[in-house]
Amino acid sequence: MSKYWSKITRNVEPYVCGEQPKDKKYVKLNTNESPYAPSPKVLNAIRNAADGDIRLYPDPSCDKLRETISSYYGLNKSQVFVGNGSDEVLAMSFLTFFDKDEAIVFPDISYSFYPVYANLYGIKCRLAALNEDFSIPVEEFLKPNGGIVIPNPNAPTGKCLETERIKEILKNNGDKVVIIDEAYVDFGGNSVIGLIKDYPNLLVVRTLSKSRSLAGLRVGFALGQEELIDGLNRIKDSFNSYTVNRVSNAAAIAALEDEDYFKKCVEKIINTRESTVKKLRKLGFKVVPSKSNFIFITHPLYAARELFMKLREKGVLVRYFDKDRIDNYMRVSIGSDEDMDIFIEKIREIIGKGV
Amino acid sequence: MSKYWSKITRNVEPYVCGEQPKDKKYVKLNTNESPYAPSPKVLNAIRNAADGDIRLYPDPSCDKLRETISSYYGLNKSQVFVGNGSDEVLAMSFLTFFDKDEAIVFPDISYSFYPVYANLYGIKCRLAALNEDFSIPVEEFLKPNGGIVIPNPNAPTGKCLETERIKEILKNNGDKVVIIDEAYVDFGGNSVIGLIKDYPNLLVVRTLSKSRSLAGLRVGFALGQEELIDGLNRIKDSFNSYTVNRVSNAAAIAALEDEDYFKKCVEKIINTRESTVKKLRKLGFKVVPSKSNFIFITHPLYAARELFMKLREKGVLVRYFDKDRIDNYMRVSIGSDEDMDIFIEKIREIIGKGV
Repeated sequence: MSKYWSKITRNVEPYVCGEQPKDKKYVKLNTNESPYAPSPKVLNAIRNAADGDIRLYPDPSCDKLRETISSYYGLNKSQVFVGNGSDEVLAMSFLTFFDKDEAIVFPDISYSFYPVYANLYGIKCRLAALNEDFSIPVEEFLKPNGGIVIPNPNAPTGKCLETERIKEILKNNGDKVVIIDEAYVDFGGNSVIGLIKDYPNLLVVRTLSKSRSLAGLRVGFALGQEELIDGLNRIKDSFNSYTVNRVSNAAAIAALEDEDYFKKCVEKIINTRESTVKKLRKLGFKVVPSKSNFIFITHPLYAARELFMKLREKGVLVRYFDKDRIDNYMRVSIGSDEDMDIFIEKIREIIGKGV
Repeated sequence: MSKYWSKITRNVEPYVCGEQPKDKKYVKLNTNESPYAPSPKVLNAIRNAADGDIRLYPDPSCDKLRETISSYYGLNKSQVFVGNGSDEVLAMSFLTFFDKDEAIVFPDISYSFYPVYANLYGIKCRLAALNEDFSIPVEEFLKPNGGIVIPNPNAPTGKCLETERIKEILKNNGDKVVIIDEAYVDFGGNSVIGLIKDYPNLLVVRTLSKSRSLAGLRVGFALGQEELIDGLNRIKDSFNSYTVNRVSNAAAIAALEDEDYFKKCVEKIINTRESTVKKLRKLGFKVVPSKSNFIFITHPLYAARELFMKLREKGVLVRYFDKDRIDNYMRVSIGSDEDMDIFIEKIREIIGKGV
């Protein structure tokens, strides 16, 4: 604590992101990055952006990128907001749509940045306890609230909520903004972008970090009816006029334009996920059915914390959350087939089942 | 207004940044960008960053960039905070150090984003009226306050405050954070980075957008004693873990390492500024003495607003602020010699003094 800190600074509980290790080379299955390089067209776009125009500010309204996104999803440009990663988009969404006095609702087991944002802005929260099978307790989102945030698929569980149930939540909360965080939806989930035209209270948040391999460039976006997007722009223009830089703009456009490459990467990750799940089940793991690029696993005989630490020693990084109800689970990002072979091999070594 | 907006969203008064025109090619002297491309080493660094690692998140603590900055300025890494442009660094600084209840003080004529940040966070402000000659009224910063922000050189005037006077302000406000925004200091101003070791309440904010030609990549930073930097990190980690992307990191490091190129660019801009000032004075303009990469000018016979609009028609963009006390001034960024020749030529055409 410092006497120079504001009350807010004293009270925040900062997010702790997955380790980005510098000490040695790991098989890195801890932050849900893609195991595949971005499309060669993306790398070309980055190289082509390396010219004298770097001296000029980027387009503050990111028109070309927003046009690309909107035509990709069959929306209008005015229904798209872009930001410096979906974390920034979410942070701004909390400030744009939620007031301090009414508690917003999100699942108790979920992206751990949500309570951090709420805390930053002094917004009250109510945690909706996931059902025993980690499914979303829809009824908890039908009670009075100040707004809703649901990741679909959820993280770190990887479970999806059916579109019909999301509709129910949207209908029952007509005056409140419902944020559906679709960071992982490209890996087999059910997107609700098609509902935007019917629900003025729906905001869908997406990222190019996972399925488009752009984590290193930080591009996220939000989709919703124009009045929601206008609100986001008011907040963004009160914070930073130019949040997405020239290189990220160009790379994001190229990523969205290379549909073949995107589909191939996603397909490979899904296949790897399914084969990894089979191998883990054979080793006695319980695996939550996943529609994302990670799996959430537990073993009846081996403590997750110990597995996590032993894997780390053996050069494999996964994510462990020391949190009630999930402290015997590990979240494992889906890497390449080679990455997952090493992961399975190390798991076998640890639990003594030889190769 | 939308029923979905929070109270804050309804009350903000977003910043309006200088036009980034798309309709045609202008001589662009309106947003204080450098007329010179970044160093060739920067462009190489961008190209070299275009590899498969783009799939991975950037280093959340930007260690290498912070080391580069700290050794450049003779500080420790723990005294450096980096962000997605100095606008973001400033936005986070307001939240980190200023409370709602005590009014912060900044000059009435100054960077127009300051009141926007204050408004976003509900922080009260007191505007210190610049003296008649646009100098900073030091005595206004010695009265009780909740924090202080002074750009040095000031924008849009280009005037500097002497280091001794800044010391006086720092000494008289030992319990409050004093932010000195040195966005333009490289063009001849007096930096107070040397005071950081003696004043735990001093935060110096810098940008690579102007003197390092990196506006398109958005890198800004803050320098101060460790407890100030720790506070900034608490806020940043409650907002977005990874604010500076891989490409911007690499480019910023390369920019700071090419001292020769930097010095040459700054020298050229200063020379062009001085020759432009001479020409303008010959044409009857009053020019505020500038230590920045822009000049603030007025003419006793021609209304600034009209000159601004006529210049725009003739393909030259400058900045005009429709604001009390400065509504007969134009702020003109210093471009290349060729840019400024066109500017002077167009001014001559407008005021009828032939070439």
